[in-house]
Amino acid sequence: MNRGVSTLDFILRLIAIMATLVSAIAMGTTSKTLPFITWLIRFRARYNDLPTFTFFVIANSIVCAYLVVSLAISILHITRSAEQGTRVILIFFDTAMLALLTAGASAAAAIVYLAHKGNTRANWFVICQQFNSFCEHISGSLIGSFGAILLFTLLILLSSLALSWH
Amino acid sequence: MNRGVSTLDFILRLIAIMATLVSAIAMGTTSKTLPFITWLIRFRARYNDLPTFTFFVIANSIVCAYLVVSLAISILHITRSAEQGTRVILIFFDTAMLALLTAGASAAAAIVYLAHKGNTRANWFVICQQFNSFCEHISGSLIGSFGAILLFTLLILLSSLALSWH
Repeated sequence: MNRGVSTLDFILRLIAIMATLVSAIAMGTTSKTLPFITWLIRFRARYNDLPTFTFFVIANSIVCAYLVVSLAISILHITRSAEQGTRVILIFFDTAMLALLTAGASAAAAIVYLAHKGNTRANWFVICQQFNSFCEHISGSLIGSFGAILLFTLLILLSSLALSWH
Repeated sequence: MNRGVSTLDFILRLIAIMATLVSAIAMGTTSKTLPFITWLIRFRARYNDLPTFTFFVIANSIVCAYLVVSLAISILHITRSAEQGTRVILIFFDTAMLALLTAGASAAAAIVYLAHKGNTRANWFVICQQFNSFCEHISGSLIGSFGAILLFTLLILLSSLALSWH
């Protein structure tokens, strides 16, 4: 039973690696998707014009790198399913990475929301009318991150189940 | 040993209840702290002018209510320290609440950052020059939330330790 859980853990980590990698790359390459409007508008919209998006890329990259390293421990759990200490360590770091990823994703979501809706009270204008494909691109790049957040919640649940079954 | 961990769990939950409650109240009452500038400016700054801050208050309220309910399970763990199933359930809901709280706090932090620094590329202006005490108040209300995020990480670690010691 624990071996099955450990295998599922390994597969979910692989999917989460993909999700965070795609998110980081999608956001990080946003500037390059808009070459055709570069000459029409006053400036070129890039993800790092907004510090929140830079933080998003960094958070996704760190989490992705962590997930790659954690694969080694996941494989250890498949071969030696009685391990307890490493599972606790994995739960701790998974939790920390979940918090980092959620922070990056929801901060970016707050700015994307503002770019779409604007705020009349604060005199912050909608910028998605001018930068339509830029906005679509950054909105899309959030999907991978939010998917990975769900995967992390599942990973922590699986690890705690494996601990309780021991 | 497990009884000690369960008692610490209970105490940390009490502190987290305080932290999220203070955060929710501090943000939710922001409008009332500015009566003296109401007549001087074009509009009165309130937390619910920005949807992100409304989400922040809702997220903190939900997490605070959850923590109050979870105290019952925490007491159960002090009296019956061999419980396994309820610990797994607690880890799962703690993880979900950690994600909700982090989402609320970091979305609000992104907007507070924007209010302080503005963004010249997106033509979003600094609003903290006009609303200085409003900005101080909303910045301060984030502290409780970020404190509670750290407490949740500790709570999940403690629960998984208790599971591994069994």
